[in-house]
Amino acid sequence: MIRRLCIVGVGLIGGSLARALKVADAVGEVVGYGRDPQALQLAQELGVIDRAETDPQAALRDADVVVLAVPVGAMEGVLRELAPFLSPQTIVTDVGSTKGSVVTAAERVFGTVPPRFIPGHPIAGTERSGVAASFAELYHNRRVILTPLATTDRAALETVRGMWQAAGAQVVEMAVRHHDEVLAATSHLPHILAYTLVDTLARMEEHTEIFCFAAGGFRDFTRIASSDPRMWHDICLANRDALLGVMDRYAADLAQLRGAIERGDGEAILTTFRRAKQARDEFKQ
Amino acid sequence: MIRRLCIVGVGLIGGSLARALKVADAVGEVVGYGRDPQALQLAQELGVIDRAETDPQAALRDADVVVLAVPVGAMEGVLRELAPFLSPQTIVTDVGSTKGSVVTAAERVFGTVPPRFIPGHPIAGTERSGVAASFAELYHNRRVILTPLATTDRAALETVRGMWQAAGAQVVEMAVRHHDEVLAATSHLPHILAYTLVDTLARMEEHTEIFCFAAGGFRDFTRIASSDPRMWHDICLANRDALLGVMDRYAADLAQLRGAIERGDGEAILTTFRRAKQARDEFKQ
Repeated sequence: MIRRLCIVGVGLIGGSLARALKVADAVGEVVGYGRDPQALQLAQELGVIDRAETDPQAALRDADVVVLAVPVGAMEGVLRELAPFLSPQTIVTDVGSTKGSVVTAAERVFGTVPPRFIPGHPIAGTERSGVAASFAELYHNRRVILTPLATTDRAALETVRGMWQAAGAQVVEMAVRHHDEVLAATSHLPHILAYTLVDTLARMEEHTEIFCFAAGGFRDFTRIASSDPRMWHDICLANRDALLGVMDRYAADLAQLRGAIERGDGEAILTTFRRAKQARDEFKQ
Repeated sequence: MIRRLCIVGVGLIGGSLARALKVADAVGEVVGYGRDPQALQLAQELGVIDRAETDPQAALRDADVVVLAVPVGAMEGVLRELAPFLSPQTIVTDVGSTKGSVVTAAERVFGTVPPRFIPGHPIAGTERSGVAASFAELYHNRRVILTPLATTDRAALETVRGMWQAAGAQVVEMAVRHHDEVLAATSHLPHILAYTLVDTLARMEEHTEIFCFAAGGFRDFTRIASSDPRMWHDICLANRDALLGVMDRYAADLAQLRGAIERGDGEAILTTFRRAKQARDEFKQ
């Protein structure tokens, strides 16, 4: 049980966590902290938070756990805002999609990463944003990756683990760098590809007609291109090296397939498609 | 009302058409023709077809309409098989995803495209294949593109239009070449991108872990990589020129975004993502 939880940035991710912990009766008071009083008011009206604060000192007072649920590009600024009012006893965790950048932000603000700062990342979300889109079941059977450091306080780590488990998630641990490589491949690259596809088509002359004749597969394929541009802009910059690595692998593979199509090499095309279908079919729906 | 309909290739597409026409009471007898007696038997057991034939002459006898529902790479062979037994009165249409290649196949077999041959393409499907996956509602509110030629018999065209309308679809006409360009962009390219992504990831060392940490967005994005490899192999070869054109545009756009990420050009990244999100949001869910 977390007596007092402070959610910094009450949107889809932070709001869904608050809802889940309330449903599980795993939290006392939920304090929402943010810059936008209207968004906080909405969160309060929806019952997602119990109290709204726009002053950092008031927001952090007696908080047991602080969850930073802001885009990764905003992490350093938020940490700097909160740092003067953070008690060493308070556990801080985040939900950022990249972990190397968050660790670096914490180092810049605190000198070294505080032992009770637990970098984390719930592998869950939808293409929607904002507290109105939040729901208590978002983390049910989803994975949450925690990337503790050698200096991490184990008791604080267990508290954060327990919080996510109470929200219905499966918690795993991973090294910071490894997290960023795996996520570049499974999440950041697909978003880049979907954004680029929609943009390529949108800039073609016949774009109205093109979207008009797009079928169900296209809808599914491009759904993630509706995601928050600012958040994904942040991720691209924050996970640049890992992302460039998988983008290059992908571009090379695409060029190879292009070559096979150009020279009419049916065997090469079929081999690629069969291997992909098998991998996709093994990955549960 | 079509008195006798012959479906050549009773899979997802042909089977769903037969089911829809039966539900709409728009067909008399449905004859299934194919090479695989077991698949035809299953189609008959499921009530999708009334009679199964593996002999082309028996299959075509007194058929008013013949629907070729085989992968585009099989069209020419199938037309050659059927040609000796086709009455000039019989209307033939197809469901191939590329139209230039089907018109060429008909020219090769018949010398010129017969006036009662109506090239067509229903913009509908799922990633599944086979008659067991067929369902009567597949074409509800979906578009069907017919690509008549200057020599096309208008009465035959109207019969095919009526057939698809009876199945619940909206029928539009388009030039053959234009169809192939639009579909290369909206359908063929996305499939290529999804197959390539899954294959790229599947060949990475940590592939088991990678698929393990893939979330909902990845599932949607890669669903089409479960599509029939043989069918998509055929499409790549049949629509080569249009496909290479959009692949090159896409690769150039991706390379440009890569450059923006590498040099940390946040404005360029944000502009692309915002433009894409706007286009995707305008495209109805």
